[in-house]
Amino acid sequence: MRVHAYAAPAAAAPLAPTVIERRAVGANDVLIEIKYAGICHSDIHTVNGDWGLQPYPVVPGHEIVGIVAEVGADVTRHRVGDRVGVGCMVNSCGRCVNCRNGDEQYCLEGMVPTYAGTDRDGTVTQGGYSTHVVVDADFVLSVPEGIDLAAAAPLLCAGITTYSPLRHWGAGPGKKVAVVGLGGLGHMAVKIAHAMGAEVTVLSQSLKKQEDGLRLGADHYHATGDPDTFERLAGRFDLIVNTVSARIDVDAYLGLLAVDGTLVNVGAPGEPLSLNVFSLIGARRSYAGSMIGGIAETQEMLDFCAEHRFGADIELISADQINEAYQRVLASDVRYRFVIDTATLG
Amino acid sequence: MRVHAYAAPAAAAPLAPTVIERRAVGANDVLIEIKYAGICHSDIHTVNGDWGLQPYPVVPGHEIVGIVAEVGADVTRHRVGDRVGVGCMVNSCGRCVNCRNGDEQYCLEGMVPTYAGTDRDGTVTQGGYSTHVVVDADFVLSVPEGIDLAAAAPLLCAGITTYSPLRHWGAGPGKKVAVVGLGGLGHMAVKIAHAMGAEVTVLSQSLKKQEDGLRLGADHYHATGDPDTFERLAGRFDLIVNTVSARIDVDAYLGLLAVDGTLVNVGAPGEPLSLNVFSLIGARRSYAGSMIGGIAETQEMLDFCAEHRFGADIELISADQINEAYQRVLASDVRYRFVIDTATLG
Repeated sequence: MRVHAYAAPAAAAPLAPTVIERRAVGANDVLIEIKYAGICHSDIHTVNGDWGLQPYPVVPGHEIVGIVAEVGADVTRHRVGDRVGVGCMVNSCGRCVNCRNGDEQYCLEGMVPTYAGTDRDGTVTQGGYSTHVVVDADFVLSVPEGIDLAAAAPLLCAGITTYSPLRHWGAGPGKKVAVVGLGGLGHMAVKIAHAMGAEVTVLSQSLKKQEDGLRLGADHYHATGDPDTFERLAGRFDLIVNTVSARIDVDAYLGLLAVDGTLVNVGAPGEPLSLNVFSLIGARRSYAGSMIGGIAETQEMLDFCAEHRFGADIELISADQINEAYQRVLASDVRYRFVIDTATLG
Repeated sequence: MRVHAYAAPAAAAPLAPTVIERRAVGANDVLIEIKYAGICHSDIHTVNGDWGLQPYPVVPGHEIVGIVAEVGADVTRHRVGDRVGVGCMVNSCGRCVNCRNGDEQYCLEGMVPTYAGTDRDGTVTQGGYSTHVVVDADFVLSVPEGIDLAAAAPLLCAGITTYSPLRHWGAGPGKKVAVVGLGGLGHMAVKIAHAMGAEVTVLSQSLKKQEDGLRLGADHYHATGDPDTFERLAGRFDLIVNTVSARIDVDAYLGLLAVDGTLVNVGAPGEPLSLNVFSLIGARRSYAGSMIGGIAETQEMLDFCAEHRFGADIELISADQINEAYQRVLASDVRYRFVIDTATLG
């Protein structure tokens, strides 16, 4: 099956329309007619080759929502016409201890990324900037009614990436949670932590987006560009979710944690960070990392968002705006996620 | 009250006999006739001025055991003749959230260290290399029968410093725990983790102390000097307790952790460490720090050791061997803790 897509032909080259091949629908596969695909910052890192040379052409996109168009003979969980989503992975070994525990993202044989990865049949995966995709049914999520389909797309990466650590480290009533950075991930972290019942503080470079932050559910908003912030908030938080991939002063942020507090990175800078162990020892603090979330947990997150009636805040764009959108993402000029209307793809 | 002691008269100067003043026994105080005092590596760091200039003369010693000689009018918990101990702290504010939670070591006003600290009455604290000490009853522990008194001394620092993180991070049956370094702290970590029912692995620079490690309760013993170790044990452990204060390759040790595993430092190098955040994100790992333990937890640890009938492995020395013992500690030539017989002090 040949389908329309947008692909990066080479590192750092602009994306352009193309046609790609999707595999035949196997017994456990689902064919999805893609309706919307979110633009994630990591799409840009990948196509630019920031994380190493890729198998070009690369069709990015791992925030995919659409409608089931066909299912394989063995598929029982999804039916033609269902609203479904696909996130950052499309396969894993299914047998290792992490897969058995529902942590497919940490599969010991390596999970299969939705694009620019090698699938278990040896083919290179191609992502969601496309009209159709064929995915193993076990990696297809149900998008419940109660979330606008376009606004649901970013939940598949930005949503689960923030929901998972918030859940894992116990965000909820009585807990003080800080979110570092108010971008695509940060704005989801604020919505989710607020819906979980935590007291939410945004730590952003400036107060530029303060009004937005409070509207999204934050109780407090502070500028990290103001050095007083780190003194005034010392020892305050139970959990800090750092959504900023750039280098940060880890010790400064650890100083904002109460005893037993955790600073968790959901992104990572390319270069190593410097950390003074006394920042940890002085209050039994932890510095942790978290990567997306498991499949069952992703479904739980979608159900949670539907129950609380929110998706992402998005700007809907057409395919011919993708390259411009990339520039705007790099300039942090998006509130808060670009979503491609795939009807415009070809 | 004037009592015999051994003090460092200046930074890096040899310790020498002296006489110091102990305060009168207040209403909530306990006068302890010290029987034994352990030598902790941090005694050496402190008297050498490695951690900043100190209020010389400094009488070190925060692994103190002895017999109650007198109690103040309000003291009900301890009686004359009781076997008691004092660890790394002798006071705290008692009112802050951490004190109220039993985490006096993380007192927001700063706990009062047993020596070279400023007590809440403004006097400089002097430690356990001495025949007597007067301590607030709330910071005096009961040393249960079932532990040899001399072997109990190192429990007050080395014991609680390792017990606390092992308990906090859930060492027990079904858990794989690694202990980095087999010194004073490491040998206690092995004994305690084994008694808790965990599967214990020692990670030591060489296999020199392997026989000891297995005798102390380790199930496995590996040399970190052998680079294969890090490949063979990748992803193995639920918890790694790092007792080595020198710089380590944090990323290499994080790579030994399974999903949700924690590497916890109980000591810290003076300079910052380098850490690649991908080491955390790849398996939702944490890097944490822990400092001694609370008072109630220290009592729990002493009761635990008594129940399991073990103290530290010690070399008993007389006061005139202290300076030589310091040299041997610096050369890692002690199995596994020097304890001063305070009857030899003066």
